[in-house]
Amino acid sequence: MSTPPFSSSVYSARLERASALAAEAGLDAVIVGPGPDLQYLVGVEGDTIERLTALVIGPGIAPTVVVPRMELAKVRSTAVGTLGLAVSDWVDGENPYDLVAAAVGSVAVGSVAVGSVARVGVSDALPALHVIPIGERLGVRLELATPVLREGRMIKDAAEVAELRRAGDAIDAVHRRVPEWLRAGRTEREVAADIARAIVAEGHQTVEFVIVGSGPNGADPHHEVSDRVIEEGDIVVVDIGGAVPSGYNSDSTRTYAVGTPDPEAAERIAVLVRAQQAAVDAARPGVTASEVDDAARQVLADAGLGEAFLHRTGHGIGVSVHEEPYIAPGNDLVLREGMAFSIEPGIYFSGEWGARIEDIVVLTADGCERLNTSEHSLRSV
Amino acid sequence: MSTPPFSSSVYSARLERASALAAEAGLDAVIVGPGPDLQYLVGVEGDTIERLTALVIGPGIAPTVVVPRMELAKVRSTAVGTLGLAVSDWVDGENPYDLVAAAVGSVAVGSVAVGSVARVGVSDALPALHVIPIGERLGVRLELATPVLREGRMIKDAAEVAELRRAGDAIDAVHRRVPEWLRAGRTEREVAADIARAIVAEGHQTVEFVIVGSGPNGADPHHEVSDRVIEEGDIVVVDIGGAVPSGYNSDSTRTYAVGTPDPEAAERIAVLVRAQQAAVDAARPGVTASEVDDAARQVLADAGLGEAFLHRTGHGIGVSVHEEPYIAPGNDLVLREGMAFSIEPGIYFSGEWGARIEDIVVLTADGCERLNTSEHSLRSV
Repeated sequence: MSTPPFSSSVYSARLERASALAAEAGLDAVIVGPGPDLQYLVGVEGDTIERLTALVIGPGIAPTVVVPRMELAKVRSTAVGTLGLAVSDWVDGENPYDLVAAAVGSVAVGSVAVGSVARVGVSDALPALHVIPIGERLGVRLELATPVLREGRMIKDAAEVAELRRAGDAIDAVHRRVPEWLRAGRTEREVAADIARAIVAEGHQTVEFVIVGSGPNGADPHHEVSDRVIEEGDIVVVDIGGAVPSGYNSDSTRTYAVGTPDPEAAERIAVLVRAQQAAVDAARPGVTASEVDDAARQVLADAGLGEAFLHRTGHGIGVSVHEEPYIAPGNDLVLREGMAFSIEPGIYFSGEWGARIEDIVVLTADGCERLNTSEHSLRSV
Repeated sequence: MSTPPFSSSVYSARLERASALAAEAGLDAVIVGPGPDLQYLVGVEGDTIERLTALVIGPGIAPTVVVPRMELAKVRSTAVGTLGLAVSDWVDGENPYDLVAAAVGSVAVGSVAVGSVARVGVSDALPALHVIPIGERLGVRLELATPVLREGRMIKDAAEVAELRRAGDAIDAVHRRVPEWLRAGRTEREVAADIARAIVAEGHQTVEFVIVGSGPNGADPHHEVSDRVIEEGDIVVVDIGGAVPSGYNSDSTRTYAVGTPDPEAAERIAVLVRAQQAAVDAARPGVTASEVDDAARQVLADAGLGEAFLHRTGHGIGVSVHEEPYIAPGNDLVLREGMAFSIEPGIYFSGEWGARIEDIVVLTADGCERLNTSEHSLRSV
């Protein structure tokens, strides 16, 4: 159980803002299921899908939480309780979609045909198991409420930045200790187990992911861990993160060399470090996400490494590890102060090795604050 | 990474059966997103929602997997690769819904208006983030494919039962060791940490949940753990489970007394043990889920404890912890050989204490096999 460090007034303001954004977007109601949106709006964590928990908000709707009775105590211990939100609880055998319809009721969509004016949005994470019956019960074609819900989460206030900074410090402390565990003769899994323990020991509440990609495994950006025995001379990608007690996440990647690295690899990784720095330098309010992406991409392309960079440059981070804004080619979103995201270019050589360098940055008034400060260049262990 | 112990022919048969069931249900296509359905059908694990991974099946459709290129290697290492299924990969910036539409294409729903004959189903776990754009792209009102997808998962074959048995043995070994850790003066969290380590040590690959509900915390069926210090005389609910390497889950609850329990509590827990046994005795092919539920409920009601039983009697289990069949009031599903589910009545006294006893059972030709055999009655530690 995390305890969000935010006061009731923070949650109250978030709810009001979301309702106002829904109104601006022309939505009559927004139905938010378990996941990061619900965590952000009222502090309710978890993502079980089988029994419906949902928050209904919207212009003119008193925020209402539909919740299985067996989860009532847990939900009441969050901002739902401290703000005294309306709660509709239900037990197995009852129909929770009737309760959702009643909460949406003030906009009277119950008898409105498909395609009419009543517009209802749902959160990204709401599963089909509930999306389909909610759509049928309300008799409307549901829309994604992504634009409404991402807006609040995308711009971090000072308290949220403090939590991201805390998470960044904690993961930096783990990276500084990686040389204690990473050495030839051990498996990736053994190293990952030590790292996982340190993630908790250094101040996280949960371990979200531990990637140890050694040698050829590092060439797969989605490799996690394996029983491969690390060898002398390996290049090793270590990409790790966890959530601090408030639920905010860390995410930082460093690339290590076991012993003396191949000189050509070391040279390419030096280029990667410059590419990462270029994107950090480019990150400021007023530029687009794709311009930041391009800053890293250009440095790699200029060095003939453009083809080796297989993914986007970064992703937003907060109560979820991956969220808006995505720092990707073609994303014309204009960045603003308070946005927090990763900058993590990588280079991958199939069957040989890979490297990635990742920091979280938060945009300030005229640039960005880098939340990860452990050594960026290739570190020999 | 789990390695499913099943051969390609098992997955091939599962896919064929799902397509046949889709045809029977009148569905032209079924789109399966990450989650237990995808794990069951092709062995692909994980449940990231941000980038679309989906399997498209249906009568007359060659099973096709839409997958982000960066996950291609991982997906190819599953039955998707060994069966040589068609794969449509995509990179950031491309539209994966076009690939889904192309895979569904043979049934030509692209230009069909809402309400027409083309019927497309989606898996329960597919998030709104993908449900809504898939519905818009295909131009159809999507339906839940639950009845099609649950059918295969609900009936376990011999290999699956062997995996559930393995998981059951592993969690029983943990319960037998609980007295090593559960004692007055320790917090629930400390006891839970010891139990979590043992869940892995006794043969699980992952720890799925550890509930230690002591004294009044045990009265909340959804309590997980807290920093409450366990006291002499406490009744403690310990509900634990994990997944073995094949991905199949364990789930077993026992209730313990720290020192000498209150005699009235002990007496009520003895009734609960009888109620649990009554439901186990009732579980056989041909009876309905609600009849099994009622068997436990009746014993408690006869003892004046009906109001204290706040939830259904059980849930199916397999590659997910909670799945069909649900053993609940009003569920007229007729049980069949091979169904595996929990039987876990509980009694809860708000502010005082709670108790729950849970086994997994698998239906045999004429009764059921109980997969958990650690001591059922209240155990003093």
